[in-house]
Amino acid sequence: MASGTKSPADHLRAALDGPWRDVREQARRQLCDERLFGDPYLDYHAARARVLEQMRLVSEFGLAEKGFRLENGGTGEPGAAVTGLEMLAYADLSLWVKCGVQWGLFGGAVENLGTERHRDVVKQLLSLDLLGCFAMTESGHGSDVANLETTATYDPATQEFVVHSPTASARKDYIGGAAEHARVAAVFAQLITGGESRGVHCFLVPIRDDEGHDLPGVTTSDCGLKGGLAGVDNGRISFDQVRIPRENLLNRYADVEPDGTYRSEIENPSRRFFTTLGTLVRGRVSVGGAAAAAARVALSIALRYAEKRRQFRDTESGEEVVLLDYRSHQRRLLPLVARSFALAFAQNDLVRRMHAIQTGQDLDPTAQRALEKRAAGLKAAQTRHATRAIQECREACGGAGYLTENRLVTLKADTDVFTTFEGDNLVLTQLVAKELLTAYADEVRDLDAMGWVRFAATMARDVVRESSGVRQLIQRLRDRSDEGVDDGDLARRSVQLQLFADREDYLVRTAAHRLRARAQETHPFEAFNNAQDHILLAGEAHIERLILEAFIEGIAGIDDPEARELAEWVCDLFVYSTIEANQAWYIMHRFMSVERAKAVRRGVNELVDRLRPHTPTLVEALGVPEAMLHAAMLDDASVHQGE
Amino acid sequence: MASGTKSPADHLRAALDGPWRDVREQARRQLCDERLFGDPYLDYHAARARVLEQMRLVSEFGLAEKGFRLENGGTGEPGAAVTGLEMLAYADLSLWVKCGVQWGLFGGAVENLGTERHRDVVKQLLSLDLLGCFAMTESGHGSDVANLETTATYDPATQEFVVHSPTASARKDYIGGAAEHARVAAVFAQLITGGESRGVHCFLVPIRDDEGHDLPGVTTSDCGLKGGLAGVDNGRISFDQVRIPRENLLNRYADVEPDGTYRSEIENPSRRFFTTLGTLVRGRVSVGGAAAAAARVALSIALRYAEKRRQFRDTESGEEVVLLDYRSHQRRLLPLVARSFALAFAQNDLVRRMHAIQTGQDLDPTAQRALEKRAAGLKAAQTRHATRAIQECREACGGAGYLTENRLVTLKADTDVFTTFEGDNLVLTQLVAKELLTAYADEVRDLDAMGWVRFAATMARDVVRESSGVRQLIQRLRDRSDEGVDDGDLARRSVQLQLFADREDYLVRTAAHRLRARAQETHPFEAFNNAQDHILLAGEAHIERLILEAFIEGIAGIDDPEARELAEWVCDLFVYSTIEANQAWYIMHRFMSVERAKAVRRGVNELVDRLRPHTPTLVEALGVPEAMLHAAMLDDASVHQGE
Repeated sequence: MASGTKSPADHLRAALDGPWRDVREQARRQLCDERLFGDPYLDYHAARARVLEQMRLVSEFGLAEKGFRLENGGTGEPGAAVTGLEMLAYADLSLWVKCGVQWGLFGGAVENLGTERHRDVVKQLLSLDLLGCFAMTESGHGSDVANLETTATYDPATQEFVVHSPTASARKDYIGGAAEHARVAAVFAQLITGGESRGVHCFLVPIRDDEGHDLPGVTTSDCGLKGGLAGVDNGRISFDQVRIPRENLLNRYADVEPDGTYRSEIENPSRRFFTTLGTLVRGRVSVGGAAAAAARVALSIALRYAEKRRQFRDTESGEEVVLLDYRSHQRRLLPLVARSFALAFAQNDLVRRMHAIQTGQDLDPTAQRALEKRAAGLKAAQTRHATRAIQECREACGGAGYLTENRLVTLKADTDVFTTFEGDNLVLTQLVAKELLTAYADEVRDLDAMGWVRFAATMARDVVRESSGVRQLIQRLRDRSDEGVDDGDLARRSVQLQLFADREDYLVRTAAHRLRARAQETHPFEAFNNAQDHILLAGEAHIERLILEAFIEGIAGIDDPEARELAEWVCDLFVYSTIEANQAWYIMHRFMSVERAKAVRRGVNELVDRLRPHTPTLVEALGVPEAMLHAAMLDDASVHQGE
Repeated sequence: MASGTKSPADHLRAALDGPWRDVREQARRQLCDERLFGDPYLDYHAARARVLEQMRLVSEFGLAEKGFRLENGGTGEPGAAVTGLEMLAYADLSLWVKCGVQWGLFGGAVENLGTERHRDVVKQLLSLDLLGCFAMTESGHGSDVANLETTATYDPATQEFVVHSPTASARKDYIGGAAEHARVAAVFAQLITGGESRGVHCFLVPIRDDEGHDLPGVTTSDCGLKGGLAGVDNGRISFDQVRIPRENLLNRYADVEPDGTYRSEIENPSRRFFTTLGTLVRGRVSVGGAAAAAARVALSIALRYAEKRRQFRDTESGEEVVLLDYRSHQRRLLPLVARSFALAFAQNDLVRRMHAIQTGQDLDPTAQRALEKRAAGLKAAQTRHATRAIQECREACGGAGYLTENRLVTLKADTDVFTTFEGDNLVLTQLVAKELLTAYADEVRDLDAMGWVRFAATMARDVVRESSGVRQLIQRLRDRSDEGVDDGDLARRSVQLQLFADREDYLVRTAAHRLRARAQETHPFEAFNNAQDHILLAGEAHIERLILEAFIEGIAGIDDPEARELAEWVCDLFVYSTIEANQAWYIMHRFMSVERAKAVRRGVNELVDRLRPHTPTLVEALGVPEAMLHAAMLDDASVHQGE
């Protein structure tokens, strides 16, 4: 990294850093600070106290303000906020969660669901004068938010809401901040006024006094130890007829007048519910980003180790062989690097879209819903990737990988719940698929029986993929796709894109078909359940296609020819290894011949061979500063012979 | 479980319990004792102290004695010992490891590598008067034991060995017991006498005095926190010219006379090395068993939860749906139950073979090597299964699965290293494959070029599968296999077995072919490395076939017709889901048509549907007593609506 001339690694890192690369660079400097790292030797009470102190240090970075509007004391740069806070994942995931709860979930609820009258709350939570928590999930209902049991019943006599947990399962559960630090909760509850339930709304409910004691009617408790995230104080809250002022309803989309009259600009209760939840999309965007960041840390550690660690002698040369020279080691780690590249581009693209919508640059009425679908899908893809990649890195480092001093087990334990929180991955993938099926149904809803038959006969035609938000580059590649995929050159992006898109289209169409066929003869739940594995595949295929498109667009932004060529190879490896994972499907549905499938397998081997000498460049490009890796084995001469 | 009449679950459990079911039943009673469970809230020093106390309680069960010969103070029932100690995994994996190190690894080394002169040591270690550790792995060499760096140089002047760590990487590392409790280490070191190195031998080296201080020349240190197993005190040991008496060499296979003359009944140094390691096979047998036991605990928890936990309403009935009624939930958990059944039978079969060899009932000279191969393969299969199954169980229980009080995260953290210790899974799978390739090469070694060509043309003929140890039942099924697999009824065991065997044969033959072709034109390491992924697949396919055979044999031992039918369905699910996982391979290598592959996928769905109502029976059959599950959510009404 000589000053002036940038290396290919620098160019690649800049590309992966995305639109807010300055924010990332600044965070890299700010976060190389021992005070911000996790200490796995602390017990969980001490860890929580430490993370709270760390959050106060982070509050001086000016990152949190970026996530709030000007009128609320922020700077109105949501993309920068999400990107900057994601970098905390390099230091410590408990810290990232703690900040995410305070500024992202709690702060985001007040900012997005509140109005002018809640402006002071935003100012206090920004400065950490007010610590809050986000009390949505209940013991009995997590994924199914619409059926939460907590009630908030309006009492016109005192102009108060009465917040109550009517059953044991209505208890708020797993709530970050609820065990120790939070003073106020943003509580999601069924609003009841005039004897009528109006669905889930959000209320600000004080839960602790200044000394940290539960307020009257509030009972908090501690979830205790978890798989990881020791620094986050997850807890439970039950309410026994707790009264709060009418004004504590976050009233952006609905309000209750002093006399108890319910008013909302959104007539349809279901639309109101989804609008309310939709404003919280930033949480999902953030979780996916942090998961991918944690995977980059793990891969950086495992690959640096694999470049140094030797085991077994090459009988001919007499030298012990470096782990990364083994084909099996290349095959287990390099495709994960390729996927990390792909996801980094996809995350940048997602944050860019989110930023455009939330700052009013994108006013397309369908954009918000498309964003939610994309965020849900990428959250699932990124957290699934993190779980798999970190596990693989742990195993690839053998016994050393199991020692806490080498950090991989902490990364694994801390990110393990990411596949669950902010939406269970399975539920989110289903949500993506349902959106696709709905779009599809909109197009063919009016077909009669004959129409359906004819439709089924024209399965090759593209009716599904939405065109909103597709850039010119991808459109041009798509337009070239009529060349005949099975003969086309698999190294060509247009052919690759077509293979991903064909899979998605086919799965969505046939899932719709199957649902419709079944729905006529059986109970709707049976029809759905019978096709559930099919539906999930459709959702996954859609997400994979979006990720590939983002990768292709990301490469287009790299000017340096050497860096660009390397990125092209990495993209090929992403494509080949993804197709390899799905090759049974491609063959069984006649999208790929057996010969081509074998070529794909050989292709993966050729690509890992080709990328092997460039691994140090790829690791540098992942962008995790060496000083932030904190893995003892990388510097310990004992584990590397011949040093 | 009415007295007198046994339920299908009882019959299934008895079958899965295997030949030492009485030992298992007794352990179930003994282990339902709060004092033997782990306490995740202890810090690691306190956890280690607790586990040491727990080991003293276990020493009163009479289990450890079963693992030693009569003349050493044992009862000579190795199969019972391995089976009984495996049950500790239901209570706490740290306790299982601690006992395994003391009696299995350390005790096993003294018992199997020592002679009469070490008899007192066995008595002391049995009673826990002497705590030991097993110091094989070094910082620089784990998998590659033959190249350990520690030296033991004989000094005839004093009739002592001088044990020394010549380099930083010669440090013994990850050694259970070395951080705090062990007083003596069984140290693996290069024996040097008369200026000549004689390869790796094992020595008893005192490391601590009675107060626990390092002895002169010995430096121990602590590996500190790990991903799990907080109750095990893993540590490091370095030796600086430590002198031990000549008699501390464990001299069963080789000895050094007072004047320094080296003597061994086994002339070939390589054979001597593998004989030495071969006696330690019990460790691998035990690790596989404990991993599978941990997976059974996790599946018992996740399935019981899935029977009670509801989420999302069925719009028609208005009822919330139990998790296990979802197709996706059935598909993620039930095939893992099927594999748990398969592995339980395979483990019982493995322990039976080990017992027969170690008690002198099986004197076939090839049996020991076959046992080592089988133990290596099953260790890899079982630990891989545990890693995957426990992770899936955690995710299937959502946020509740992440709380330590529900145990899944502890099971995950504790078993995570099982894929690594007692032999890295990848290295072990490779070892299995190399054994297969060697057997193969023995048969075709003498073919000339024309012979190779002819051979390649007759790939359909079976030359690979060893016939040693195959029972009649399997042989009969194999003999029926010429019916034409692609037309045969996939529900028939003979056809299923043929599909597994075909895959193995084909992979082994083609791997051998590829290696031979490459070896002629390139560097041997290149030839090996280029085919490494292929070689690993061959090893895996072999193991899968052995597992299926064990399942089939296990079913044959079930008399109760209802239990037997259920077991047959579970076996079908094991077969179908295993084939589904490999369906691309089957299609690409023309062992299966696309239509049949689709039928397999439908078959998995039909089987999970069919097994769904029997899940409580299957869970009971897994044999983990409800009182040992220790998962708060199973009894917590808050997480189950409608209770």
